[in-house]
Amino acid sequence: MTENYNIEKNEIKVGVIGATGYAGAELVRILQGHPAAKVKWYGSRSYIEKEYASIYRNFFRVVEDVCKGDDLNELAEQVDVIFTATPQGFLASVISEEILRKVKIVDLSADFRLKDVAVYEKWYGIEHKAPQFIKEAVYGLCEINREDIRGARLIANPGCYTTCSILTAYPLVKEGLIDPGSLIIDAKSGTSGAGRGAKLPNLFCEVNENIKAYGVASHRHTPEIEEQLGYAAGREVVLNFTPHLVPMNRGILVTAYADLTPEGRDAEKVRAAYEKYYGEETFVRLLPQGECPETKWVEGSNFVDIGFVIDERTGRIIMMGALDNLVKGAAGQAVQNMNLLFGLPEETGLMMMPCFP
Amino acid sequence: MTENYNIEKNEIKVGVIGATGYAGAELVRILQGHPAAKVKWYGSRSYIEKEYASIYRNFFRVVEDVCKGDDLNELAEQVDVIFTATPQGFLASVISEEILRKVKIVDLSADFRLKDVAVYEKWYGIEHKAPQFIKEAVYGLCEINREDIRGARLIANPGCYTTCSILTAYPLVKEGLIDPGSLIIDAKSGTSGAGRGAKLPNLFCEVNENIKAYGVASHRHTPEIEEQLGYAAGREVVLNFTPHLVPMNRGILVTAYADLTPEGRDAEKVRAAYEKYYGEETFVRLLPQGECPETKWVEGSNFVDIGFVIDERTGRIIMMGALDNLVKGAAGQAVQNMNLLFGLPEETGLMMMPCFP
Amino acid sequence: MTENYNIEKNEIKVGVIGATGYAGAELVRILQGHPAAKVKWYGSRSYIEKEYASIYRNFFRVVEDVCKGDDLNELAEQVDVIFTATPQGFLASVISEEILRKVKIVDLSADFRLKDVAVYEKWYGIEHKAPQFIKEAVYGLCEINREDIRGARLIANPGCYTTCSILTAYPLVKEGLIDPGSLIIDAKSGTSGAGRGAKLPNLFCEVNENIKAYGVASHRHTPEIEEQLGYAAGREVVLNFTPHLVPMNRGILVTAYADLTPEGRDAEKVRAAYEKYYGEETFVRLLPQGECPETKWVEGSNFVDIGFVIDERTGRIIMMGALDNLVKGAAGQAVQNMNLLFGLPEETGLMMMPCFP
Amino acid sequence: MTENYNIEKNEIKVGVIGATGYAGAELVRILQGHPAAKVKWYGSRSYIEKEYASIYRNFFRVVEDVCKGDDLNELAEQVDVIFTATPQGFLASVISEEILRKVKIVDLSADFRLKDVAVYEKWYGIEHKAPQFIKEAVYGLCEINREDIRGARLIANPGCYTTCSILTAYPLVKEGLIDPGSLIIDAKSGTSGAGRGAKLPNLFCEVNENIKAYGVASHRHTPEIEEQLGYAAGREVVLNFTPHLVPMNRGILVTAYADLTPEGRDAEKVRAAYEKYYGEETFVRLLPQGECPETKWVEGSNFVDIGFVIDERTGRIIMMGALDNLVKGAAGQAVQNMNLLFGLPEETGLMMMPCFP
Repeated sequence: MTENYNIEKNEIKVGVIGATGYAGAELVRILQGHPAAKVKWYGSRSYIEKEYASIYRNFFRVVEDVCKGDDLNELAEQVDVIFTATPQGFLASVISEEILRKVKIVDLSADFRLKDVAVYEKWYGIEHKAPQFIKEAVYGLCEINREDIRGARLIANPGCYTTCSILTAYPLVKEGLIDPGSLIIDAKSGTSGAGRGAKLPNLFCEVNENIKAYGVASHRHTPEIEEQLGYAAGREVVLNFTPHLVPMNRGILVTAYADLTPEGRDAEKVRAAYEKYYGEETFVRLLPQGECPETKWVEGSNFVDIGFVIDERTGRIIMMGALDNLVKGAAGQAVQNMNLLFGLPEETGLMMMPCFP
Repeated sequence: MTENYNIEKNEIKVGVIGATGYAGAELVRILQGHPAAKVKWYGSRSYIEKEYASIYRNFFRVVEDVCKGDDLNELAEQVDVIFTATPQGFLASVISEEILRKVKIVDLSADFRLKDVAVYEKWYGIEHKAPQFIKEAVYGLCEINREDIRGARLIANPGCYTTCSILTAYPLVKEGLIDPGSLIIDAKSGTSGAGRGAKLPNLFCEVNENIKAYGVASHRHTPEIEEQLGYAAGREVVLNFTPHLVPMNRGILVTAYADLTPEGRDAEKVRAAYEKYYGEETFVRLLPQGECPETKWVEGSNFVDIGFVIDERTGRIIMMGALDNLVKGAAGQAVQNMNLLFGLPEETGLMMMPCFP
Repeated sequence: MTENYNIEKNEIKVGVIGATGYAGAELVRILQGHPAAKVKWYGSRSYIEKEYASIYRNFFRVVEDVCKGDDLNELAEQVDVIFTATPQGFLASVISEEILRKVKIVDLSADFRLKDVAVYEKWYGIEHKAPQFIKEAVYGLCEINREDIRGARLIANPGCYTTCSILTAYPLVKEGLIDPGSLIIDAKSGTSGAGRGAKLPNLFCEVNENIKAYGVASHRHTPEIEEQLGYAAGREVVLNFTPHLVPMNRGILVTAYADLTPEGRDAEKVRAAYEKYYGEETFVRLLPQGECPETKWVEGSNFVDIGFVIDERTGRIIMMGALDNLVKGAAGQAVQNMNLLFGLPEETGLMMMPCFP
Repeated sequence: MTENYNIEKNEIKVGVIGATGYAGAELVRILQGHPAAKVKWYGSRSYIEKEYASIYRNFFRVVEDVCKGDDLNELAEQVDVIFTATPQGFLASVISEEILRKVKIVDLSADFRLKDVAVYEKWYGIEHKAPQFIKEAVYGLCEINREDIRGARLIANPGCYTTCSILTAYPLVKEGLIDPGSLIIDAKSGTSGAGRGAKLPNLFCEVNENIKAYGVASHRHTPEIEEQLGYAAGREVVLNFTPHLVPMNRGILVTAYADLTPEGRDAEKVRAAYEKYYGEETFVRLLPQGECPETKWVEGSNFVDIGFVIDERTGRIIMMGALDNLVKGAAGQAVQNMNLLFGLPEETGLMMMPCFP
């Protein structure tokens, strides 16, 4: 289905809606280095007619375009793929069959991540305006749904916490090495995950030298993790997920706890399970025995680093995963999805090395 | 037993061994504002004969003393109480009955925290040189062992992670509202907890913009938490404890997960349990329903803030506690112990307000 | 003139207008530890009727009051001194002779700092509503104007940058050791100086890992520094002042450059000049030869640390000063002024040790 | 002179000495994305035989090599270009005519930056072991010495502070718009500039929430700036340079002050001077009138952002420049030099977008 596209340099025309949010700006950064795609539309309702590079000075003298609006119908005429890095509800309120016939959409919002519309409406507190597209939307976790993504029109790009949480636990759930009902996911995120809105709790002086949990037992990424791990487990999964705000710009670290099943109490088996699913993956790096991932080692890159420790005393495993919330947790994964959608090698434009220090 | 001391202004003569570590310097800061105690001996093996204020410039023109050594016998002649903020094994290697007859000792190291010497030797990997004093040492968690502390000669001042972990879970364990065997403690600490040693992993560029777990399933504070919560539970407790390093100077946040027992599945009962043990406590602040503690709100103070959320979906409770690792987690609690030892009001010199921002 | 006040414990009744800004909250923190003053009125237009401690959780269980409005007439009936930590123009718009007959006012805004109303109106861009009180207002830089402060009714508490800049250069200007016309002041400030307003440039992700100059050649503290140093020089001073935003919560560092006059090219003379003016000062600490002040060494305290280096090659001196912008640069100095106004020892309630790390 | 090299993909064989320092690791990161160069030798005396990616986990599964020693003679047989990111004195102690006949060398140390060996020996306090190569070494500030670089064998890669300082002031000195004798350069640097040595002053808790000046009137980059600006001025330049340590990983901001000459007091002329020298430059971005550069906007990139403000009141100009000390201030500029040495387009492998936030 990608045969309609003749992929050459700068051939894929890209529209970004929500280009002035942090995830949108990261899309622009990554696509700037992509050899086969070019951003043609910088959509930002708040900054229409303003130079994009005046909002993000890192692109000064590199991006010359001005911001445009968010008219998806108009945009669908001009580009091959649209990334929507928009608030919940936006895409569902404007998407149509007509648009989907013209362009691929990679949605970085949560609108099409959950298959059960009731769950969506309960956790997000808004009515879903386009439930008819939920079924066809493919959950864009490339390492797991690669084949379905290739043929899709509409990709629900996973959340940042969910990407990290799911990838960290998936092989062990899938292989029955842990009891999914015992899963407790304690996640820590940099502050860019909170977006660029001018809100008091996100001020420097409120975040700096501080750490706190938030959204305890109520964060919206919970059902998304549960649904995807439920598919892996072959049954419903209910778990605890607790996000924390950390005084750093980027990075998510997930520390996940679970009871090992009798088969799981063997480090070799656990390692083999991770290798089975990720051994060939470019972007998932399983660390050597006993090593703990650090967010800094993946910053700016599309890598997810995973490590684990088995606690013989308690019979539990501690799984740890680290990624850059704006890259593998958002824009990088979105481009990875685009690569799959357009038949490109999955790593195209995504081999940025992590920046250290 | 405090009748030997005639408590007036600056009456308690204090010796600090390890005065040039971060915890030692925090002792000096706190005692500087204490109306009834005065540091007479700034012990620091590495800086003997150097002006103390040349090592810690915050005390420039305030502290005029030079550093001395760590001869406990000599020191015992000169002061009423000794704080040892020293590496593991130091106090055990020099303590004696003769010394304890002359001075009170508040030990900030782990030497006398664990009652089972075999557990100490296993987790710390060193031989205990003075097991004969383990039994009489009182675990200095003031809110729990207040009465025993008053009459003690030797106080084992609790660890920073342990203080936060134990206080966060204690009432619910004690009242049987949670299953202690299900306890998972995910802790996050500022970097001052790593001490002032010049080690590569503690360099600014390695810690900043980074978060990681460390000591997974092997951190030495684990058996200390288990022992104390075991007393509360009335039976052996084995649990998971995972510390994380956070890019901030001070603060520990504990996020603790446990299965509620049938009686525990009632927020009012949980709250009542916390109120029962902490309702009269000055330094433990139970936050209103659903509020999450933040380390910044206690920074520089001796407060511990505690909050909780019950997750009806999983039947678990998420307990959260926050403190300043150098104050309530070390030097502040040590002074609180001193106040108890010398019959002073427990809050004496400890009502520093948290500094925000 | 302080004989009307019978100073005993908690005798001075204090009102704070703008109590929910960072400077206001710091006033509350400091006054909480003051033995002779008590806050009776927490004024905050935005949070009327809300519990003060719900806005600043550091005061949870310590401050029980709710926020009130900013009616100075009503407030003047109830307290002995009013601190106005309010936006420019507020105090000038409400002050009156009647109020000043009842209470002392320490104004942390710029309304009464500049003697020349035209200069005020030019740099601040607003009309001055109460120029009749400018003359009697005393510029509250305690180390310099101590005597005038004691007898005043209205204190113009100096700005944060200005306090640091003036104290750093004052003795050398006064003694003619530097050419004031050559003064270049390069200042660096923590982010709390920008206030608690929810503005995009003050978001964590915008400030963290970043440094920038702002207000170049146009910052409003410039004429304030010029006026005060002009008094010291005995003639008009025009200088360069450049503030920078640094990714830290608190602290101002001033690096000031000036040509030494022929008499000034002698480190001993320079040191003697500093000693002459600050030798007896509690809060100004002249560092040993060649040492550079660091903001961390004064954080949380009312100290100003000063150092200097003479560059023989260029004939210039580099003067450096460091203070905590919320303490000596705002609330601490305001309380120092209050102490002077009420005949208390100047250090009362202000001997908080700097917090390190 | 580049005709000996047949430049195709991965053709240039690279050796890095000092590959485990921060600048060395940044070279590895940049070269990893370079289409025409490949690192063949990861030299690190401290980590010989260790996997390079075990020292820098960001390269896990990307770089498979182990560290080798620093034998330049052996290395010269195997590679086309050597980068020495080594302590002062190292290269001078091992360089030889024989080596230079075989390979190009880009030296990131200061060994060949200063033309006057006496100045080197005075400021660095060590004897220069290879003064015979000083003359032929080309100072590798590409924007200024581009033509000389192309034909060189030995490049003295400029210091981080110096690159920023010189580029910020160069056009105005060259065009006589400012008085070079009046130059005062106040520079602020992230902590990676201090290197990866485990030293107490570089610990997280010592740097975080702190700012200080250091090396006042004595920093070794001073004579380097003076020499280069002296060439521009056509006469000796003596100036003040003051570096500061800022709590961030990367970034240098230079705020430079100078008296405008009579011709210089015209913003249009100043702008024209900058445009004259940088208008065609890829990596130097002159910001619009009145805008101040921020280090965050160039982080991770090879850009230098420059802005200026003229202060009519004082007759001075405030020039500001920002760069990433590890990229344009070290490794990026080194690769830019390599590109020139090997006849590649100067931007090859260097168009990394700045990472924000």
